[in-house]
Amino acid sequence: MRRFQIEVAYDGTAYSGWQIQPNGMSVQQKLEEVIRGISGCNSRVHGSGRTDQGVHARGQVAHFDLETRMSAAGLWKAMNSLLPPDIRVNRLSLADDQFHARFSARAKEYRYFIWNGSILPPSIRLYYTHVQSRLDPQLMQKAAGYLKGKHDFTSFTANANRPLESAVRTLSALDVRKKGNRIVITAVGDGFLYKMVRSISGILIRVGEGAVPPSRVKEIMRSRNRTAVVPTAPPQGLFLWKVHY
Amino acid sequence: MRRFQIEVAYDGTAYSGWQIQPNGMSVQQKLEEVIRGISGCNSRVHGSGRTDQGVHARGQVAHFDLETRMSAAGLWKAMNSLLPPDIRVNRLSLADDQFHARFSARAKEYRYFIWNGSILPPSIRLYYTHVQSRLDPQLMQKAAGYLKGKHDFTSFTANANRPLESAVRTLSALDVRKKGNRIVITAVGDGFLYKMVRSISGILIRVGEGAVPPSRVKEIMRSRNRTAVVPTAPPQGLFLWKVHY
Repeated sequence: MRRFQIEVAYDGTAYSGWQIQPNGMSVQQKLEEVIRGISGCNSRVHGSGRTDQGVHARGQVAHFDLETRMSAAGLWKAMNSLLPPDIRVNRLSLADDQFHARFSARAKEYRYFIWNGSILPPSIRLYYTHVQSRLDPQLMQKAAGYLKGKHDFTSFTANANRPLESAVRTLSALDVRKKGNRIVITAVGDGFLYKMVRSISGILIRVGEGAVPPSRVKEIMRSRNRTAVVPTAPPQGLFLWKVHY
Repeated sequence: MRRFQIEVAYDGTAYSGWQIQPNGMSVQQKLEEVIRGISGCNSRVHGSGRTDQGVHARGQVAHFDLETRMSAAGLWKAMNSLLPPDIRVNRLSLADDQFHARFSARAKEYRYFIWNGSILPPSIRLYYTHVQSRLDPQLMQKAAGYLKGKHDFTSFTANANRPLESAVRTLSALDVRKKGNRIVITAVGDGFLYKMVRSISGILIRVGEGAVPPSRVKEIMRSRNRTAVVPTAPPQGLFLWKVHY
């Protein structure tokens, strides 16, 4: 039995998310089907973490164990030839037996893409969140500064029903960059709570619109209480960009 | 009756092309339906020219005549609120009675997008043509140099069944630019024959692959005879980028 590591890009539009669900097709299921098609074996594909319905990935990482004589290059080619074009295996390599896509991850990088113009160009409509009102990226960056570092992010998760788990996470980077009509929020952290990036993006958009002052974000964080003032930004702007090992 | 001029962007994936067809939904038909929905009037939308099935536009231009009291800004807003997100009206303005989207056009600009890497990223798969073999942009640019200027482009059109029409056109620009894995062919001309940009892109890809020497392109042009050596590149890489008036 050998362990393989893959980096996967996908367009989440047509999927119910990364993880296998009773209803709807998931990216994980597609990958497992294709591995079964190639090898005849049922192999579980372990991802670095889930992505929600409609969320995309540029660099999701996963591993699986397989009894096969195929080379890594041959397996990579076979998988891409059987997968639909909205899922691509960027890289495939043999991994150490100790490697685990989820538990070996040191950090993850997400990017949230906002189109801040009156008209959303059709060819990027599935990969950007459209915000028509003018956003101030400097206000957004100021608010992001309060969230950077080690904090309890209870106020920025939808997972209120897991009170016993720690909600302390460290964001080593949270940057807001604007170029033309594009605003990109980059978040790098040792771990992310459920819907955390979309919640942070949601409040940063509110700040950029001038609806919430940056200092209020610090107060919301300290309150450790998810309130209606924090919207969850739509899934289609979010990409799991990179997993760091 | 007032004449309106619109600049339209669309994702051609779901349409049978610009022009109304007996089978399949066209962009022109969608626009006319929306104008009818707003005004109750049947108004013909005249485009600067057709685009084929699967071809996109960043800046198609069209005009239509309408008896309405709505302001241009109001009409623009109403059209975008009724149109599907894969068709957007970038701009709408009152036009001179003499303005004609097709006959007033001085030049058109097309861009052909090629992804020259082993893996086509899922989020751009509908807007790029994927070429896996390494392309040499300098060879492509050299061949493009022979096509630039005023020539008979019979060898680069699929329209062999119109022998009486002149196939002489002037390409004021034909540039090949590479940035990372992206290669973009930009073509500006006073007019384009049927499938001319895709035929030129097709032969330039062959040249880039090393399958056809650049000088052969000059010979093919001079032969004024469409041959099998000129492939028609796929539609999804092509954008009608801008119409110059």
